Amino acid sequence: VAEKHYLLTPGPTPIPPQVATAMAAPMIHHRGADFRALLQRCLQRLREVFRTEQDVLVFTSSGTGAMESAVSNLGTRDGRVLVVSAGHFGERWAAIAGAYGCEVEHLRYAWGENPSPDDLASRLAELGGETVVLLTQSETSTGVVADVQALAAACRGTGSVAVVDAISSLGAVPLEVDEWGIDVAVSGSQKALMTPPGLALVSVSQAAWRRREQGDLPRFYFDWERTRKAQERPLPAFTPAVSLVAGLDVALGLLLEKGLDAAFEHHARLGRACREGVKAMGLELFSPDDDRSAVVTAIRAPDGVESGEIVAKLRERFGITIAGGQGELRDKIFRIGHIGYIDVFDVSAALAGLEVALADAGADIERGVAASRALETYAQRTPV
Amino acid sequence: VAEKHYLLTPGPTPIPPQVATAMAAPMIHHRGADFRALLQRCLQRLREVFRTEQDVLVFTSSGTGAMESAVSNLGTRDGRVLVVSAGHFGERWAAIAGAYGCEVEHLRYAWGENPSPDDLASRLAELGGETVVLLTQSETSTGVVADVQALAAACRGTGSVAVVDAISSLGAVPLEVDEWGIDVAVSGSQKALMTPPGLALVSVSQAAWRRREQGDLPRFYFDWERTRKAQERPLPAFTPAVSLVAGLDVALGLLLEKGLDAAFEHHARLGRACREGVKAMGLELFSPDDDRSAVVTAIRAPDGVESGEIVAKLRERFGITIAGGQGELRDKIFRIGHIGYIDVFDVSAALAGLEVALADAGADIERGVAASRALETYAQRTPV
Repeated sequence: VAEKHYLLTPGPTPIPPQVATAMAAPMIHHRGADFRALLQRCLQRLREVFRTEQDVLVFTSSGTGAMESAVSNLGTRDGRVLVVSAGHFGERWAAIAGAYGCEVEHLRYAWGENPSPDDLASRLAELGGETVVLLTQSETSTGVVADVQALAAACRGTGSVAVVDAISSLGAVPLEVDEWGIDVAVSGSQKALMTPPGLALVSVSQAAWRRREQGDLPRFYFDWERTRKAQERPLPAFTPAVSLVAGLDVALGLLLEKGLDAAFEHHARLGRACREGVKAMGLELFSPDDDRSAVVTAIRAPDGVESGEIVAKLRERFGITIAGGQGELRDKIFRIGHIGYIDVFDVSAALAGLEVALADAGADIERGVAASRALETYAQRTPV
Repeated sequence: VAEKHYLLTPGPTPIPPQVATAMAAPMIHHRGADFRALLQRCLQRLREVFRTEQDVLVFTSSGTGAMESAVSNLGTRDGRVLVVSAGHFGERWAAIAGAYGCEVEHLRYAWGENPSPDDLASRLAELGGETVVLLTQSETSTGVVADVQALAAACRGTGSVAVVDAISSLGAVPLEVDEWGIDVAVSGSQKALMTPPGLALVSVSQAAWRRREQGDLPRFYFDWERTRKAQERPLPAFTPAVSLVAGLDVALGLLLEKGLDAAFEHHARLGRACREGVKAMGLELFSPDDDRSAVVTAIRAPDGVESGEIVAKLRERFGITIAGGQGELRDKIFRIGHIGYIDVFDVSAALAGLEVALADAGADIERGVAASRALETYAQRTPV
């Protein structure tokens, strides 16, 4: 069993030492002055990262809890929502809305496709607008990063609210919540925000607050208004994951110190490096070969190779954790996540390990070039 | 501002260094073999602590999320629940059930009273049984620990399910989930389990699973069945707070290594030590002066003293964090929590600090005896 570990999944992601240290500080009470100052600073930093002047609500939960909060706060019993999906996490929107008894309209693409703003505009026109549109920015199951700026623009003027799952994308690729007119963006602590999982984040626009007034679905823990009122003081509505808030605050400080633009460039270059390394090995990309795909690179498993087995071997033999496929892509793809506290040396280690594991499994791949191609590509600041 | 900190609230509680260290370990993926082994061991330890052979479900949320899960999994639209309340957290049951549109029957006591099993039996007989009974073991707002063994016994044979909020009591005072016939017990990581907040725990009996089949309230993230099925593999249903699970596992190991009986005795002795110290100072207890009250000691603020001000001063001047009153007891009581990773020296520090702060505020109290009385009392293994 390998001693040293490399974590390159699309979440959770590695934790910077400063964040781990902050989380190991002695526990503090969540209603005391020290936690309140911490929460206030963290909320301000979140607004900067979301690029919004609006409230960003913090819940102690997985990202799915934040997604559910969007449905339970905005939806109505038997009311309509429109889900745009092209993979596992788009389907999750539909499952949540279905669980709440919403009438789910579905603009559904094959896994790996990129949703079209024109299709969305047409579907909204057919439906007469006035709905809740549930979108996914980074579809982690396929590696596709959708153009949510254009998708949100398609919602404008239709009386609909645009809700974006930005769980794996926030902090990795541009998301301009206010400028793009995104009513609700949900995210989580454990992706590009470099913090362990357990905190879910939700930005809410004025239009979303107005829409919420019509809501009649039951909610308590994930009720936006309860959390908004508490955060004004600033306090949490319920005992929060104090140590994770302390970690998130430090991680956001690290992110903002270098600046969001630097983070976006770094992620774009990592994605490019990973794709070029993959192609040099002779493997086929599943995710698009474009610069928007900077969160996770999905790679087709060569014929006769089950990706799940290779993923297990990589972990056992080299301590390298990448992901396999989910749902219908199970055993068909590898996914290398490169968000958060990841550099190109991690990516090249993952590619080198993958190369060895595939060669051992008898796959016909090019040897000895992937890692160096990734390093070279990262060194170039602009696409070739 | 004080450099050294003492945290004696009824939660969050101090974290043992072994737990903090475990949480600072490098992040691992929640679907990998290492996390699965960790989760399996943690679930087994939770069953030992809950004293149950049944499933204990783990959610990433505050304890309130676990309470909500009991309502949304067991309740029915317009169906009846019976809330037994005598303080802030009993009222929370009613608020959650109300938010879900349940018809809330209420057996309500004044804050600080101890719910009577006979009253519960009578009310259940009036209602014809067949309901969901929502109980509180440790009412953290008042310091009263109810006799949930007798309360659960009153539910038996009525076709009702007994649900117990054991958030601040689990691991501090006896709770025999299976033997006492408690259908659902909910708890949290941040009290006597010595882990930061962020994990909520729910044990579910066979009768509760059957009752759930009638449930028609919407739920997704807190759906018990989804989490049960995942945990069988063993996996989390959603990306969990990995670092908190790692911490909880270590904390449960520490607790079980010494044994639950040792923990219960320690907490009973701490409670006794705190009460004797308080009385030696000439202060009046608000919580009962009995050995069951081993979670938090509530103390009446002397005439002319607002407890909130003293709590703030204790924190600023000495780094000692205790709690004030909640709701209708705001500014009227102090609450000293003594659960989890707390010893009698912490309690005597809190009493000594309280003594100085009260004396400075002009309260007429006995000086120089509280801390030593607490230490002496703890040293005696049986009640005087």
